[in-house]
Amino acid sequence: MSLILYELCGADTARPFSPYAWRARMALKHKGLDFETRAKPFTQIASIAPEVGKTVPILVDGDRTICDSWAIAVHLEETYPDRPSLFGGPGGMAAAKLIESWVNASVSALIVRMIVKDIWDLLAPEDQAYFRPPREQRFGMSLEEVQEGREKRLSDLATALLPLHLMLKTQPFIGGDSPLQSDYMLFGTLQWARITSSFQLLEPGSPVAEWRERCLDLFDGYARAIPAA
Amino acid sequence: MSLILYELCGADTARPFSPYAWRARMALKHKGLDFETRAKPFTQIASIAPEVGKTVPILVDGDRTICDSWAIAVHLEETYPDRPSLFGGPGGMAAAKLIESWVNASVSALIVRMIVKDIWDLLAPEDQAYFRPPREQRFGMSLEEVQEGREKRLSDLATALLPLHLMLKTQPFIGGDSPLQSDYMLFGTLQWARITSSFQLLEPGSPVAEWRERCLDLFDGYARAIPAA
Repeated sequence: MSLILYELCGADTARPFSPYAWRARMALKHKGLDFETRAKPFTQIASIAPEVGKTVPILVDGDRTICDSWAIAVHLEETYPDRPSLFGGPGGMAAAKLIESWVNASVSALIVRMIVKDIWDLLAPEDQAYFRPPREQRFGMSLEEVQEGREKRLSDLATALLPLHLMLKTQPFIGGDSPLQSDYMLFGTLQWARITSSFQLLEPGSPVAEWRERCLDLFDGYARAIPAA
Repeated sequence: MSLILYELCGADTARPFSPYAWRARMALKHKGLDFETRAKPFTQIASIAPEVGKTVPILVDGDRTICDSWAIAVHLEETYPDRPSLFGGPGGMAAAKLIESWVNASVSALIVRMIVKDIWDLLAPEDQAYFRPPREQRFGMSLEEVQEGREKRLSDLATALLPLHLMLKTQPFIGGDSPLQSDYMLFGTLQWARITSSFQLLEPGSPVAEWRERCLDLFDGYARAIPAA
């Protein structure tokens, strides 16, 4: 058995930061699988496995190559059914699709506007040149302007995270008593921000911040091993 | 076996509209159970089963009385395990807690501001007198002012529902190929609005509107049998 996870980094290959690759990293740890990682900068992602996909994460599992964090989680669930479940049954897998969309559309969309310039700062020059123009076109302004005034948008983020805040009154993880893939989806986004930016998104001691701490503690502090920016 | 569901109505007892009671109604239909309903106006809710709870829905199942739509769904799942599952396993039940909070905090909180005066219009005089003051105090303005300009807030609602819009690209229900309690949670909120207000919340033909149509079709058009306002 040989598992290799391709992911994304800036100039420092020891600080992989793709939110989607973190979902796959945590899924592999959840399954208790041994795996190697290969971190690549933006300009090398498209050539990892162009016949399969042009985004990370990409997982090579023996003779299979899988692109996309959702497809990877499903692959792991189906291929390693005797190991701990990532979804807790068919209802959990279906609900995880809504939760994935919630993280992407309602949470990540706010966070990217708070950290996108900090991400650019971490890239090697040729990746900086690749990264900036399409994003400035999408946002309609410079990366510096996108990030400007981010403090004022923290209340929007707290509002977006209110569903989790409320849920945490009754259970410690989205998965219930212990985490599932749905936790890793949101955690991946927060880990992306934690590694790339020193901007504090969560109020220390708040229920959501405490949940993130519990995720950082998982698998002997696996995700915490990469220090915060 | 005798099941009685207590719910909420305005002056017309044939138009029960509590979003939470609709969650319980759909859960009972999902389980294929026969039940009777008793619709009560706001001023009579607290005396239905004061020792158990002062909100609807309240379910009387033989010698047990259960208050709260979540507790009712869990009760039905545990009491009638041989009938179709409401959660699709433990992961689905856990995820449903997050989805419940998402519906309440991110969706219902917007919708109430678009229909609260329309709800008041449906109440008998003594319930109108009960309903208005605490809500006007909470909103800090008259019910008429709360609803004012609601057309401009439809885009906020579409943004809040974007996670579902995106999820529907890959599956027809939050439960996957068929609905689960998590669908009924959001559906209950939209049914509340459909019964109490003629204000159109969803763009006809949009993926979310089509999903609502599918929910209205369930159980031989059970929820559609009550005409829209």
